[in-house]
Amino acid sequence: MNGRALGLGTTATCRVPYPELLNTLVRALLRAGFETERAARCAQLFAESSRDGVYSHGLNRFPLFLSMTRSGVIDIRAEPQLVSSSGLLERWDGGMGPGNLNAYHCMDRALKLADLHGVGCAALANTNHWMGGGTYGWQAADAGFIGICWTNTCPNLPPWGAKEPRIGNNPLVIAVPRVDGHIVLDMAMSQFSYGALAAHRMRRELLPVDGGYDLDGRLTRIPEDIEVSHRPLPIGYWKGSGLALMLDMVAGILSGGRTTYQVAAEPEKETGLSQGFIAFAVQRLGDGDSTRELSDQVIRHFQSPSEGDGGQVRYPGERVLQTRRENLAKGVPVEPVVWQQVQGLAA
Amino acid sequence: MNGRALGLGTTATCRVPYPELLNTLVRALLRAGFETERAARCAQLFAESSRDGVYSHGLNRFPLFLSMTRSGVIDIRAEPQLVSSSGLLERWDGGMGPGNLNAYHCMDRALKLADLHGVGCAALANTNHWMGGGTYGWQAADAGFIGICWTNTCPNLPPWGAKEPRIGNNPLVIAVPRVDGHIVLDMAMSQFSYGALAAHRMRRELLPVDGGYDLDGRLTRIPEDIEVSHRPLPIGYWKGSGLALMLDMVAGILSGGRTTYQVAAEPEKETGLSQGFIAFAVQRLGDGDSTRELSDQVIRHFQSPSEGDGGQVRYPGERVLQTRRENLAKGVPVEPVVWQQVQGLAA
Repeated sequence: MNGRALGLGTTATCRVPYPELLNTLVRALLRAGFETERAARCAQLFAESSRDGVYSHGLNRFPLFLSMTRSGVIDIRAEPQLVSSSGLLERWDGGMGPGNLNAYHCMDRALKLADLHGVGCAALANTNHWMGGGTYGWQAADAGFIGICWTNTCPNLPPWGAKEPRIGNNPLVIAVPRVDGHIVLDMAMSQFSYGALAAHRMRRELLPVDGGYDLDGRLTRIPEDIEVSHRPLPIGYWKGSGLALMLDMVAGILSGGRTTYQVAAEPEKETGLSQGFIAFAVQRLGDGDSTRELSDQVIRHFQSPSEGDGGQVRYPGERVLQTRRENLAKGVPVEPVVWQQVQGLAA
Repeated sequence: MNGRALGLGTTATCRVPYPELLNTLVRALLRAGFETERAARCAQLFAESSRDGVYSHGLNRFPLFLSMTRSGVIDIRAEPQLVSSSGLLERWDGGMGPGNLNAYHCMDRALKLADLHGVGCAALANTNHWMGGGTYGWQAADAGFIGICWTNTCPNLPPWGAKEPRIGNNPLVIAVPRVDGHIVLDMAMSQFSYGALAAHRMRRELLPVDGGYDLDGRLTRIPEDIEVSHRPLPIGYWKGSGLALMLDMVAGILSGGRTTYQVAAEPEKETGLSQGFIAFAVQRLGDGDSTRELSDQVIRHFQSPSEGDGGQVRYPGERVLQTRRENLAKGVPVEPVVWQQVQGLAA
């Protein structure tokens, strides 16, 4: 496997056994002052992202995460606090604590509420980057629930018709549990992330489809031209622009927290995010076998080959499972420079 | 205003006062055998779609709707039945009744549940085309709630990587109430509907961006080439393809109804759809003024002009309100042929 398949910027990678990756992250977090149980959970969430192929929000993001705990943007001691409970909608304050711990907690709350009432919802204010959003989809599906969650972000995307970044790329996650592999969609509202633009640039590749505008206002597949113009495209042009706005507003209103325009635009200072977590208790619906059957049939139909198809049609989450198996068997690919840096932080 | 601004295929339109449009539709439904109260509600939902500029799902769709009641695809006497209540998640069976009446009823149930519990959810099986999905977003926002709803459809969109239509364009609606005009997103998962393709073709216009593939598998802006290939694009390519799949699965599982692969692909036979309705009781959160302030600020920021912007940035629902005002003042634009036909059905 090379850098391309890994979604990394370079081809020079090596593999580290998953337990070694996990333990190294735990040690780095303990050294950074995390309390034992929280260090274990936080390290696990980072390690699992790399294990599942979401390298940009796994090990590769870890140094920035630790640097933000040192600069005080992330408060490692802050635990989410219940602000109010309006019926089945709980509001939580993340206290600017670690984003992945806060998000994990709030999806857990949504699951517990759904277990009791069929549906559960937790809204989270004042949190930080949740890292790989798919994490919380898998969390819900592993527990047998349908999970939906989304986050706002700093302004990193121009609305349709504008040049300046004024909306977030606001990832949306939807997860459906299935015996033969959960179906987990994790999609940002930009067609390509800045990470994907950088990866294509470093591989000297064009984007597969138009990804944004160049400085002259022309649609382009040249990644560096979009990095310069800061004008990536929303998915579906005006449609993704509108959906990003709605996700931001709903997260802000439900949580009582900040919306994108109130969030600093620099990645190192991006904080005070708002998120929503919804869970549905599939198992309470009592359909059991027929739901299993339905999910399998839908996926079979989705993937059934038709004349002239170009290769296999993949369902959301399929590649994650394949990557997970491979990385558990062969070791998790790491960028040597980042791995050395994190080992240093753990020593 | 010409046909282009109306989203109609031709430029030859005339205007009819809203009350006349509404009364004509009521009479046609009564003649078709609808019970009085249901005729009034059903006519109102159709008339409001035309009033709001959603002509394709207002008057223009009405003759097909009536023809489907005559062919028995739509059962005009069927009322939604509560199948089960799993905590706060209610399951309703639409009995293959009129899609707009069923959807209106289920959003109403979600609102009532949310009023009691903060969050409410109704899932609907065995229903028909809900016409303009935005209707149920406005319904929620008019009542002061955040509303989210979506429907599956017949297979009308190829998954990313496939040539055959195997997913639906599954419209998703998200509505946020606001004093100065609700924010209501109503978006299908295809970049352009077949209606939009036909309208561009009749106006001899290219699509503003690539809308699908031609028969040779090239991306194209030529509407008729996509009509022939039956390969419109999902929004965001692989992203909209995945989101359409998830919306279908979640609607099918929550409602216990059919998923897209079980629905007949011909518009005249498309029936047995599944839908989801979620409401959040914003007013129970007790933020009042600060929520109002937040919504206004977000929209102001979204629309703030920046150097070199091409015209005004519109928020979802903005154009609907403008069209509504204009159509109430000047009359609702109708296609003369369709209007004559419906007048005949009402006579």
